[in-house]
Amino acid sequence: MIRIICVSAIKLIMKKYFLSEEIMNLKGKKIAILATDGFEESELRVPQDALEKAGAITEIISLEKNDIKSWTNGNWGKAYQVDHTLSSSSPSDYDALLLPGGVLNPDLLRRSEAAIQFTRDFFEQHKPVAAICHGPQILIDADVVKNRKLTSFMSIRKDLENAGANWVDQEVVCDSGLVTSRTPQDLNAFVAKMIEEVAEGKHRNQTVER
Amino acid sequence: MIRIICVSAIKLIMKKYFLSEEIMNLKGKKIAILATDGFEESELRVPQDALEKAGAITEIISLEKNDIKSWTNGNWGKAYQVDHTLSSSSPSDYDALLLPGGVLNPDLLRRSEAAIQFTRDFFEQHKPVAAICHGPQILIDADVVKNRKLTSFMSIRKDLENAGANWVDQEVVCDSGLVTSRTPQDLNAFVAKMIEEVAEGKHRNQTVER
Repeated sequence: MIRIICVSAIKLIMKKYFLSEEIMNLKGKKIAILATDGFEESELRVPQDALEKAGAITEIISLEKNDIKSWTNGNWGKAYQVDHTLSSSSPSDYDALLLPGGVLNPDLLRRSEAAIQFTRDFFEQHKPVAAICHGPQILIDADVVKNRKLTSFMSIRKDLENAGANWVDQEVVCDSGLVTSRTPQDLNAFVAKMIEEVAEGKHRNQTVER
Repeated sequence: MIRIICVSAIKLIMKKYFLSEEIMNLKGKKIAILATDGFEESELRVPQDALEKAGAITEIISLEKNDIKSWTNGNWGKAYQVDHTLSSSSPSDYDALLLPGGVLNPDLLRRSEAAIQFTRDFFEQHKPVAAICHGPQILIDADVVKNRKLTSFMSIRKDLENAGANWVDQEVVCDSGLVTSRTPQDLNAFVAKMIEEVAEGKHRNQTVER
């Protein structure tokens, strides 16, 4: 009995140590944040801060080089500087992709062939993708949700199901490098899982066809 | 030859007369306009004005009794008074339904079971429904687009196709009482076709299952 307790305790400590090492170990990782006007501010800023705190570099990629306007508390919020346009960016230069939500932002992005291809390339390259709220709308156009377990803001549930996704109602869902959450209230769980997946690196089953 | 020209001319005049009669003949018709915050102002106001000019009564139905805020030129616009809430309205009291677009408005409406059921009931009752821009998103949740020919704002094309619709890129599409258009630029054609369908009344093939 004592032996079992000791072994369990050691396993727990190792897991905790390993995880905290992992969390601090995003040094050298570069994360693309794809966003445009109307992104929900917290859904960009909170993961961005956490990723950088964990040692990663983040870059905001957008349709054009102009600053992009955030959306906060039901209205336009402050502007964010864009690091690169889609036309001057390559998914090969990044280790993972973050897709913040907001109602307006993904609706604008999914109109862009370049944004859709950029997103799809992360799946082609088996790299982690984290999408929250309405962010997964872009995944529908990128044709990468079929047979994937995921969540989203509830208003787009039907669209994701019709696209072949296995939609579940959880604060965070992780399916082989694809991390999804529902709303800003889920950000803690979303960020923790995203960091874990980025630390792990490529996932064989994170792909365009499943 | 002269006989053919004369017959064609008479047919043309009759058609014109019949159509203009029809356009002026919405007296006694009552149209529900389902909208909430973020509706594209022109997509409510222009059809509303035209329907009333043609003799119809229009009523704005919403989630709550508070005024609803329009969206115009990329920002919040003026407020519109709500006539009835969904909970105090019945599709049986109306001859047709108008679903304006805007990105925010249908996203809010499709979260509401009452809004989805209200919309679906017009199809159950074979009554004309006219939806423009992002308005058709509500039709996805109402499960009424399968095997229907329609159009919409291009960003939601994939969602409508995944729901089983036959999506086409035209200024207006009419399929047995279901009238759809893409953007405010299509409003003239949208309004003319909506008036025609409302004047015709119920359509057998405007239904929930096809």
